[in-house]
Amino acid sequence: VRELAERVLAGDMRAAARACRLADDRAPGYEELLRELYPHGGRAWLIGVTGTPGAGKSTLSDALVAEFRARAERVAVVAIDPTSPFTGGAVLGDRIRMQRHFEDPDVFIRSLATRGALGGLTRSTRDVTLVLEAWGAGVVLVETVGVGQDELDVCRLVQTTLVVTQPGLGDDVQAVKAGILEIADVFAVNKADREGADAAVRELEQRMALGAAERAVVPTVATRGQGVPELVSALDAHRVWSTGTAEGRERHRSRAIQAFVMFLRDALADEVLASLGAEVTETAERLERREIDPYTAAGELIARFRGT
Amino acid sequence: VRELAERVLAGDMRAAARACRLADDRAPGYEELLRELYPHGGRAWLIGVTGTPGAGKSTLSDALVAEFRARAERVAVVAIDPTSPFTGGAVLGDRIRMQRHFEDPDVFIRSLATRGALGGLTRSTRDVTLVLEAWGAGVVLVETVGVGQDELDVCRLVQTTLVVTQPGLGDDVQAVKAGILEIADVFAVNKADREGADAAVRELEQRMALGAAERAVVPTVATRGQGVPELVSALDAHRVWSTGTAEGRERHRSRAIQAFVMFLRDALADEVLASLGAEVTETAERLERREIDPYTAAGELIARFRGT
Repeated sequence: VRELAERVLAGDMRAAARACRLADDRAPGYEELLRELYPHGGRAWLIGVTGTPGAGKSTLSDALVAEFRARAERVAVVAIDPTSPFTGGAVLGDRIRMQRHFEDPDVFIRSLATRGALGGLTRSTRDVTLVLEAWGAGVVLVETVGVGQDELDVCRLVQTTLVVTQPGLGDDVQAVKAGILEIADVFAVNKADREGADAAVRELEQRMALGAAERAVVPTVATRGQGVPELVSALDAHRVWSTGTAEGRERHRSRAIQAFVMFLRDALADEVLASLGAEVTETAERLERREIDPYTAAGELIARFRGT
Repeated sequence: VRELAERVLAGDMRAAARACRLADDRAPGYEELLRELYPHGGRAWLIGVTGTPGAGKSTLSDALVAEFRARAERVAVVAIDPTSPFTGGAVLGDRIRMQRHFEDPDVFIRSLATRGALGGLTRSTRDVTLVLEAWGAGVVLVETVGVGQDELDVCRLVQTTLVVTQPGLGDDVQAVKAGILEIADVFAVNKADREGADAAVRELEQRMALGAAERAVVPTVATRGQGVPELVSALDAHRVWSTGTAEGRERHRSRAIQAFVMFLRDALADEVLASLGAEVTETAERLERREIDPYTAAGELIARFRGT
C-alpha cells in the first residue's frame, strides 16, 4: 500500500487508477492508503458541474477540460452523472468529441456508479478526489446530475459549483432548482441564442441575490464556444473569492464542517453495525412486530453503544 | 399532543395535516406524537411510484387514486416529486384533472420538499406516512422522481414499488435505471402505443429476470386508461406475494432492517452533535488544516462518544 501511495504521488496514472479502485471498493488497506495520501490533498481546485441532462453540461465540461489543459494544468474528471460523455452514457458525437481527452496522459477520468450503500456515493467521491489530488491534478471536475440529495451532498465537497441550465424550462424544473440555487456559485445559461435567454439570466440573477461579487450568471452557446471565456473568468473569480477573502474562507470552512459531519455519520453507522450488528437486526424485528417504536429503539441501541 | 393523536386516530383530516406539519418540522412534542401513533401504523399498503418526468407517472398516479377510491379505500398521497400534479408543479391540465381528488375528504395529499438536512427526506417520509396510516389511509402512494440516492432510500420504506417508464428512452436513461431495476416490483411501460413498446417490455422482462411471480411489466396508455386494470392487478398480485409468502415477508423484513439502519444512523449523528458539537467543529477545523485525516478524526470522536 505504501508503494502504491508513492507511485500515485509520483504521478503514475495506472497507480492512481488502482488506488481509486481500492478506495472505491473499500478493499483491505484502503484506509491506510488514504491516510498516506491525505497530507497531499487539499491542493486542487474542485469544481462541481451539475444541471439537467440536455442543457449542454457535457459540452461545457468538455470545453472546461480543454481550457484547463491549455493552462498546463493536470485535470481529473469524476463523473457521477450517468449522462456524462465521460462515463459512456452519451450519444456518439459526444464520445468522439471526448476522445482527445481520453488520449491525453494528463487527463484522468473516473466514473462512479450511484451506489446502493448508505452515503456510499459521497464517500467514494471524497476518497477518489483525494487520490486524484495526490496524483497531481490541479483541477478536479466533479460531474453530477443536479436533482437528488446525494448530488447536493457531493456539491458540499467542492469549492466552486457550476450549474448549467437553459432558457425555457418550465415551472416544474424551477422546483428542482430550489435546492440547487443555494449551492450554485456560477450559473451557465446555455443555448443562450434561444428565446427567453435574457429573461432566464435576469431571473437567476435576481434569485441569486447578486451584488455578491462571488456569484455570477453567464449566458453561453456551448456548441459554438460562445461565452466560454466569460464562464472561465467567472469560475476564476469565484476561486479567488473563496481562497482570498475572509467570507469565502468562512463559507469553505462551513461546508467542510458539514462534509465532515456526513463522513462521521457514516463512520458511526459502520461502527454500530460492527459492534451491535445482531442487536440492530433483532431490534428491527421487534419494530416490525410493532413491539417498540423507532425512537425508543434507536435510543436504546445508542445507550448500549455508548455503554459498551 | 395526546389530544392531537386522538383526533388523528379518529380520522380528522385537519388534525392529520397538523400532525404532519409537527412531524415534518420536528417541532416540540413530535417524538411523543409519533410514539403515540406508532402502534397504529403498519396497516396501510405503501406503494412507491417513481419514474422519469414526462413518462406519464402523474396520469397513472391519478388513475390509481381513482381506482383505490372506487374500492372505498382511504387514500393518501405523499408527493416528493417536484413534477407531481399533487404538489402544484404540473401543467394546468394536470391540476384540473386532480381537482376531484382535492375535494374528496377521503384523499389526503401531502407534499414534502427535498430537504437540505442529512437524511431529512427519508425521515420526513417515514414520519408523515405513519401519521397518514394512523389517520386511516388504506393505501399510501409515495411519489418520487427515480434518480437519486434519497429516492432509492425512500423506496425502501414502501411495500410495492411501481416504476413508470416509456418506450424509446435513450441509453443515458438506461444507466439511471440500474439502481431502479433493483428496486422495481412492477414496471409500467407507458405510451405503449408508440413504436418500440414491445421491445421495451421484453427488455425489461429479461432484465428483471421474470418468472418470479411477484414482478411484472405492464404496457399502458395512461391517457386512455388502457392497461390500468392490468396494472392494478399486477400491483395487487405483488401485495399478495409480499404479505402472503415466506419469500415476500423475508424481503419486506430485510428492507425494514435497512430502513431502521438508516433511521439509526441519523439518530446517532444527532446524538453525537448534541453531545460533542464543539469537538466536532474543532476536529473539522484541524482537518481543514490537514493536521489530521478524517479516518483518524472520526475514530477519535467515536471513541470519545462511547467513553462519555
